[in-house]
Amino acid sequence: MNTKPTILTGDRPTGALHLGHYVGSLRQRVALQHTHQQFVLIADLQGLTDNGTNPQKIRDNIPEVLADYLAAGIDPELTTLCLQSALPALAELTMLYMNVVTVARVERNPTVKNEIAQKGFTRSLPVGFMVYPISQAADITAFKAEYVPVGDDQLPMIEQTNEIVHKMNSLLPAPLLRHCQAILSDTGRLPSIDGGAKMSKSLGNTLQLSASEDAIHKAVSAMYTDPHHLNVSDPGQIEGNVVFTWLDAFHPDKTKVAAMKAHYQQGGLGDRTCKNELETCLQELIAPMRERRATYIQDKGMLMQILQQGSERAHEVTQTTLREVKRGLGLPVLF
Amino acid sequence: MNTKPTILTGDRPTGALHLGHYVGSLRQRVALQHTHQQFVLIADLQGLTDNGTNPQKIRDNIPEVLADYLAAGIDPELTTLCLQSALPALAELTMLYMNVVTVARVERNPTVKNEIAQKGFTRSLPVGFMVYPISQAADITAFKAEYVPVGDDQLPMIEQTNEIVHKMNSLLPAPLLRHCQAILSDTGRLPSIDGGAKMSKSLGNTLQLSASEDAIHKAVSAMYTDPHHLNVSDPGQIEGNVVFTWLDAFHPDKTKVAAMKAHYQQGGLGDRTCKNELETCLQELIAPMRERRATYIQDKGMLMQILQQGSERAHEVTQTTLREVKRGLGLPVLF
Repeated sequence: MNTKPTILTGDRPTGALHLGHYVGSLRQRVALQHTHQQFVLIADLQGLTDNGTNPQKIRDNIPEVLADYLAAGIDPELTTLCLQSALPALAELTMLYMNVVTVARVERNPTVKNEIAQKGFTRSLPVGFMVYPISQAADITAFKAEYVPVGDDQLPMIEQTNEIVHKMNSLLPAPLLRHCQAILSDTGRLPSIDGGAKMSKSLGNTLQLSASEDAIHKAVSAMYTDPHHLNVSDPGQIEGNVVFTWLDAFHPDKTKVAAMKAHYQQGGLGDRTCKNELETCLQELIAPMRERRATYIQDKGMLMQILQQGSERAHEVTQTTLREVKRGLGLPVLF
Repeated sequence: MNTKPTILTGDRPTGALHLGHYVGSLRQRVALQHTHQQFVLIADLQGLTDNGTNPQKIRDNIPEVLADYLAAGIDPELTTLCLQSALPALAELTMLYMNVVTVARVERNPTVKNEIAQKGFTRSLPVGFMVYPISQAADITAFKAEYVPVGDDQLPMIEQTNEIVHKMNSLLPAPLLRHCQAILSDTGRLPSIDGGAKMSKSLGNTLQLSASEDAIHKAVSAMYTDPHHLNVSDPGQIEGNVVFTWLDAFHPDKTKVAAMKAHYQQGGLGDRTCKNELETCLQELIAPMRERRATYIQDKGMLMQILQQGSERAHEVTQTTLREVKRGLGLPVLF
């Protein structure tokens, strides 16, 4: 009997992962897998909610994301890696939960509202996209996850999940479903190379886990600093200076970074020196990930086998929850 | 290999069935099971879409509806009786189809619009209720049904299903999903005893398949005729006269009914005589159903075993479709 607290986390397989993911979630998962029972869900069905007419994008990215996980140090012996579409209990629980949530309630979900605006959906909103907070509640509760690592923009999803837990538990003879808590990342969102909030491969303003030496060099060279820091001797600003935010996120020696910041603010520390320091540290971080990733991505059969084994384990866990919920509602469990 | 055309039909288990169901669907199913591969789905999940907080109503009515089916002559050797919640493929296909249908489209579905008005949902509309046309499309297509017996109020559901088939097929390498056609009942909707369009147990204006001799007698006695037909010798109206509509629906001798109609319109045929003729024929129709039903409902274990066997068969059929669709979309089929 595993008594470690349970975590559910995951990604939509819409693209290979980048350093934003590394800082925001992958690094944390590598640590948490030792102290928690961790399930990482590749949310292919959720990926389809806004790529419904482009399933190829989703299917092609499943092995990419898996290779990223392994490259970052997620260990399939410690973490259960599983595929959303392989777990029918998630769809079945979604169907059951949809009956206790009103249309008005999902439309009011701030995360969904923002995403609808961002993605330019208005009347063309796919039903699946509107339903995805309920589907996410099914995911979380099917694993009886106590902790869900999220960005602060996702807190309304946790709230909605707990509302569903409350409503479902009130219909069940015992509180079978577990309330969950957010784990907020202690590092904020990593800014992109150009200083913007949105980091994506298509904008070319980030680094993939597979970034080449040259790509790393170019990215650091192009990185946004303090535009008013024209001479080395000038005092520089570290607020909004992407090089320093990245040094904070990636440099292992916090004391050294603190000293550099002070020096930069006083004047006398050049952007080039800071960028060299960052580049060295990124080259060291990425090189082993790039190598491991290159090996893993060669063997998609092995990747899918890891996914299958994890999904089998996740299937058992989620089927158990589904059966409990069905029995609790009095629905026949025929087989 | 079964080459008979496939039919999907079914009921929400929200109450025992009555003579309206007998005329509108049960009788037809008994005939069609000899010429078609017929699946009858007990739609418990769909029943929950507007009974989400009262699952007991749904679970209690599953054996009731099964007993009605057998009592009416549906033969589990010829018809596959199955339970919606036992078939995960239906939920999984619903999740996939939700991504190719917009919220605007389901809101525009005339059947859903009418039902929303009838049920008094406005802002309190459960998401599951809004989604049910998509879920119904999943049901129909999972069985690759070519024919779906429906009332004319349900035609928009068939149209929506075929739209989904068209969209999904365009995403698949081959047109895996089958378009379906409505089978409209040749008898119109049976009016209730009081002459209203809506027949329900709770309104007390219909007869269950288990109706007692006395209940049948009372129902026929209370039946709405021609309120202006005060004396036997007066000419009477047969339009809107429930006794004649029911004679049309239930009397085996059409010639006799035609003669009675002519006599009634001329004058000289009393309501009592007509009602006696109808009562005799209803007593003869219901008595064997009542008896069979009383035996079946005693043995809920046997009823659930029939449902299990049918559901196992339906599971195979629907899983095959799901796997084809997943493979067609390129989603991994892990197990």
